[in-house]
Amino acid sequence: MQIQYLFELLGTCFFAISGALVANNKSAPDWFGVTFIGFITAIGGGSLRDILLGSYPIGWVKDVHFIYAILAGTLLASIFYTTLHKLRKTLFLFDTLGIALFTIVGTEKALGLGAGPVTAAIMGMFSAVMGGVLRDILTNEIPIIFHKEIYATACLTGAALYLLLFYFNIDRNLNFWLSGALIAGIRILAVRYNLSLPKFRKDTADTI
Amino acid sequence: MQIQYLFELLGTCFFAISGALVANNKSAPDWFGVTFIGFITAIGGGSLRDILLGSYPIGWVKDVHFIYAILAGTLLASIFYTTLHKLRKTLFLFDTLGIALFTIVGTEKALGLGAGPVTAAIMGMFSAVMGGVLRDILTNEIPIIFHKEIYATACLTGAALYLLLFYFNIDRNLNFWLSGALIAGIRILAVRYNLSLPKFRKDTADTI
Amino acid sequence: MQIQYLFELLGTCFFAISGALVANNKSAPDWFGVTFIGFITAIGGGSLRDILLGSYPIGWVKDVHFIYAILAGTLLASIFYTTLHKLRKTLFLFDTLGIALFTIVGTEKALGLGAGPVTAAIMGMFSAVMGGVLRDILTNEIPIIFHKEIYATACLTGAALYLLLFYFNIDRNLNFWLSGALIAGIRILAVRYNLSLPKFRKDTADTI
Repeated sequence: MQIQYLFELLGTCFFAISGALVANNKSAPDWFGVTFIGFITAIGGGSLRDILLGSYPIGWVKDVHFIYAILAGTLLASIFYTTLHKLRKTLFLFDTLGIALFTIVGTEKALGLGAGPVTAAIMGMFSAVMGGVLRDILTNEIPIIFHKEIYATACLTGAALYLLLFYFNIDRNLNFWLSGALIAGIRILAVRYNLSLPKFRKDTADTI
Repeated sequence: MQIQYLFELLGTCFFAISGALVANNKSAPDWFGVTFIGFITAIGGGSLRDILLGSYPIGWVKDVHFIYAILAGTLLASIFYTTLHKLRKTLFLFDTLGIALFTIVGTEKALGLGAGPVTAAIMGMFSAVMGGVLRDILTNEIPIIFHKEIYATACLTGAALYLLLFYFNIDRNLNFWLSGALIAGIRILAVRYNLSLPKFRKDTADTI
Repeated sequence: MQIQYLFELLGTCFFAISGALVANNKSAPDWFGVTFIGFITAIGGGSLRDILLGSYPIGWVKDVHFIYAILAGTLLASIFYTTLHKLRKTLFLFDTLGIALFTIVGTEKALGLGAGPVTAAIMGMFSAVMGGVLRDILTNEIPIIFHKEIYATACLTGAALYLLLFYFNIDRNLNFWLSGALIAGIRILAVRYNLSLPKFRKDTADTI
């Protein structure tokens, strides 16, 4: 469990870094604005999950280390700004590890609170992607879940695998790594090979 | 009560259909994006009401049938896409029945939790319109409540009638139908005769 | 305490006025739209704070006087529209008093619920600024916290002073006025002398 707590802090830090870098692409905001966006990116998904589940106290409200992790992420984003922008692949990897981790943690938390499998999978996906959605709303971007490459669907798939193995009583740690790896794997393949889900309707533009 | 539960599932399905159709008008998103928007449209208002009232567990978190209703709505929206776009009047009717139903259900729920009449009316209106507001925020549209024709005000009026009849001890079922009909009636007349509330200030553009 | 309750109602009314005036600058919405924006501006920050802290019932849900204060604010905004637009400095002062008051009230509330100092300061700042952030999201403006002059940082600074004096057991009322004055003072100086925080990275535009 101790190692998972470390993972969560690390995931929070990664999300704050990615939030800070995205925020800064918009009209050069000041330190507060960037930190604020990093903060919302990092805690948005988990907070929404806990609010929807009625699970109090919310993680970062109770445990100030999550806030320190966010401040550290913002600071790192500032110091290594140029490097991080060059290492876009590294950043992408951080985000991928972050969503894989948060999906499984969120799914487990919902299950532990008595949620059914469908709700648990949704809560896992929300944990992973809703911070980014809130970040995109605040910065007036098109929300990341509407981007071309598979993103939230990877989280849902990983959550589904976790739930399947969970009901087959597979060892929890093995399940954690297998399902997390599936999410990261799908996401990496999706970006590498430009994979996307089918459009809802191809003839949209014409019918309007 | 059983029939009301069916109504709620149906209302959820209608909102998901309308959400999916609106979402798809924006730059042809994929299946996940459209389903996600349908989901937020359908559960946004009720979830916000329950969060504000501190009423847990939230409906769709507890009862997976609401999620099935949303998936069914998205699927129907895809299959009957062309037809639904032609039958805009049918769609409008679905939305109208949806907001009428959700307003009364939301008002009743708030009353049952001890809310006063003003708060109960606001909660009823929130149940009906906030899903659409969230949908519009996510898709960067001007929120529906700022559109020209009377929308949320119809919900508030119906909620007010419900509360009035409630305090006069009118039979609950009769009250349900009367107040719901008032909401639907106002909304239909508003669209048919292009009725709108007075502007806040007519001279806005000039004073700025 | 009685006088603080009056202050809170007054602060709510001020925020509703500022929300109504901002809303009306956007494409002349109707009375409902303007009242709705005033409402969200006034109760958004406190509601989010209470939801994050799991502190129920939420103020305005329990106490209808807050809703009356908002309606009064919207009405005042309509009646004195031209005057208020001319007296931009008066309006600015109202907003400044509002954020100073809400920051301290929010910080105190979080402390009273057992939050640590960092969380309490964040909750105080959220109480003050998140209503305006929600207003800006709804009206598609750039959120106020990203504006040039110091805004939310003034709230955080005042909350920090409050917490410092709180842990030194300074008289609560004295602390209330001192910390509130610091927020208002910073904000006034920031606007008067055009003070802003340093940019996150000066070279943003070039690196992208």
